[in-house]
Amino acid sequence: MSGGLILSIDAMGGDYAPDIVINGVEYFLKHTNKNRNPRFLLHGDKHKIEKLLEKAPLAKANCEVCHTDSVIAMDAKPAMAMRRGKGTSMWNAVESVKLGKANVAVSAGNTGALMAMSKLLLRMKTGVQRPAIAARWPHQEGYGVVLDVGANLECDANQLREFAVLGEAYYRALYKKDKPSIGLLNVGTEDQKGNATVQAAHDSLSCSSLGLNYVGFVEGNDISMGNVDVIVTDGFTGNIALKTAEGAARLIETFLKTALGGNIWSKMTSALNLSALKKMRSKIDPRLSNGGVFLGLNGIVIKSHGGTDAIGFASALSVALEMADSHFLDEIERTLSALHDEDDSMEIHLP
Amino acid sequence: MSGGLILSIDAMGGDYAPDIVINGVEYFLKHTNKNRNPRFLLHGDKHKIEKLLEKAPLAKANCEVCHTDSVIAMDAKPAMAMRRGKGTSMWNAVESVKLGKANVAVSAGNTGALMAMSKLLLRMKTGVQRPAIAARWPHQEGYGVVLDVGANLECDANQLREFAVLGEAYYRALYKKDKPSIGLLNVGTEDQKGNATVQAAHDSLSCSSLGLNYVGFVEGNDISMGNVDVIVTDGFTGNIALKTAEGAARLIETFLKTALGGNIWSKMTSALNLSALKKMRSKIDPRLSNGGVFLGLNGIVIKSHGGTDAIGFASALSVALEMADSHFLDEIERTLSALHDEDDSMEIHLP
Repeated sequence: MSGGLILSIDAMGGDYAPDIVINGVEYFLKHTNKNRNPRFLLHGDKHKIEKLLEKAPLAKANCEVCHTDSVIAMDAKPAMAMRRGKGTSMWNAVESVKLGKANVAVSAGNTGALMAMSKLLLRMKTGVQRPAIAARWPHQEGYGVVLDVGANLECDANQLREFAVLGEAYYRALYKKDKPSIGLLNVGTEDQKGNATVQAAHDSLSCSSLGLNYVGFVEGNDISMGNVDVIVTDGFTGNIALKTAEGAARLIETFLKTALGGNIWSKMTSALNLSALKKMRSKIDPRLSNGGVFLGLNGIVIKSHGGTDAIGFASALSVALEMADSHFLDEIERTLSALHDEDDSMEIHLP
Repeated sequence: MSGGLILSIDAMGGDYAPDIVINGVEYFLKHTNKNRNPRFLLHGDKHKIEKLLEKAPLAKANCEVCHTDSVIAMDAKPAMAMRRGKGTSMWNAVESVKLGKANVAVSAGNTGALMAMSKLLLRMKTGVQRPAIAARWPHQEGYGVVLDVGANLECDANQLREFAVLGEAYYRALYKKDKPSIGLLNVGTEDQKGNATVQAAHDSLSCSSLGLNYVGFVEGNDISMGNVDVIVTDGFTGNIALKTAEGAARLIETFLKTALGGNIWSKMTSALNLSALKKMRSKIDPRLSNGGVFLGLNGIVIKSHGGTDAIGFASALSVALEMADSHFLDEIERTLSALHDEDDSMEIHLP
């Protein structure tokens, strides 16, 4: 791997692949590229991809097509996907990162299968118990990061602490903020609130000497209010919180559309403050927060929503490029090593 | 207790009590009463209450003031509140229901203290493991009901099944729908998704012969979409989902206000479709969904948000009146009895 950054793409993953993937790459190169001129490996059905590239000149000029005959079905069980996964577009997309042919892999395919393959091919970083999936969450001033949003349905206190470390490094890499604040999601902010797991994680994060900017417990409403940068929770709660907020946002958009009797944006923008409304629209557009990152592996893998469109896929590519262009993997290595030193010294001091 | 319905009110509970309580009763009698003309017992500081009643003629004509010297602090620990609770406005409000002097109790005070007192004074219905708190959740066509939203941070499968029974009876009582649909909140809708607890609850609800309209797993976005009437979850997840959605709704409202450069409603309603916007506003106004109900006790207790205003408190009174005027307690008795018969017969058939 030499020269610029290389993004390895599962061109066949997602409900509307390969169309949204190729169009997503084209949209990204046209609108979001930021002059870093990455190149792309497109894994999938050569004939379908090349046909689409005919109408996507920027993508065509910056892509290499890597043919595969088989794909992972969107509803495949992870175990089944693993047994039959080798040589699929998803497998090859991740394998390119393992082999050093690409800096990052992106897929809109089956989440469980992608996680299973990523763990098998890239392996977890030393000492990480299980990888987490981190999602970006829009708020008034920018974005927060919530993890885990679905990889680990049951977590112990050590895992939650590890998520804090992973999420903090991810936030720094993506948003270049030196000391992002970290909160632990709970049913109240008082120290005595919550179940045994969050209590133990809270104690351990409060006493940690890792230098994390841990602010304590936060509540559900703090996420959208932007009161904290990194929100740590188990995958069951995080997944439900994320989808619940998406549902609430969609409901309000539906109400607005009904109330205004047609295309809300066209009517409102014609009469009122155009740029502020555009900003608002971009904030609550779920496509623009697309791109969950698998954290804790020896390599970077980005999961796009399966049902997204080309603009959503381009957002996932944006996250991929930002991560590939950061020192995330080196930094996380250092912090995890400090975390384990802390664990070791705590063990020594235990009675 | 004879004649009309009687609502027993903790006049001192809430961040802005007793003002919002008295003004809430006045607002309720003026706007939401529906000709059922209930009467009110107002427990609290006689001098403060009577002064406020001077400016609230409808409330004054329909209230009896029951003086108490002491109140439960909003930040009191439940155990402390129990030790010093007797004779407080909250205690006496609940005790009036126990003594048959009122049909329902309402408080905007400390949730933990109110739950502890309610359990002590009213006791749980036979066979109920722990009471749950049910919240109304607005969607496009009406309201859903979510439980538990905070009373039980860890739940087993039997509790979740009990919540399904309690929530179904509550929904029928409040919205007069014969067979409300029930969903179990999970990270996906496929049968194999989720942790061991929701899996076991799903199996047990799927096989139940109670005649519940159980539709299976639902996801976070299904709540606001109104795809199901009763959403069952543990108190940790439910509390976080509820506050997360409130945060997302508040964020969008803030964006709209900023985008429209001032009072959004006045600007929009002046130019556009007034009635549809009013409807939308009422839908996403959290005050109008106020009033969580404690389910599983021998009596009805309604918890209002501590920080609500008079309009929000009036919404809680609305729920209280609807519940008091329903056959909820009798019905739930019958369904719980059927649930336990089913448990007994399952035990007999186990190997």
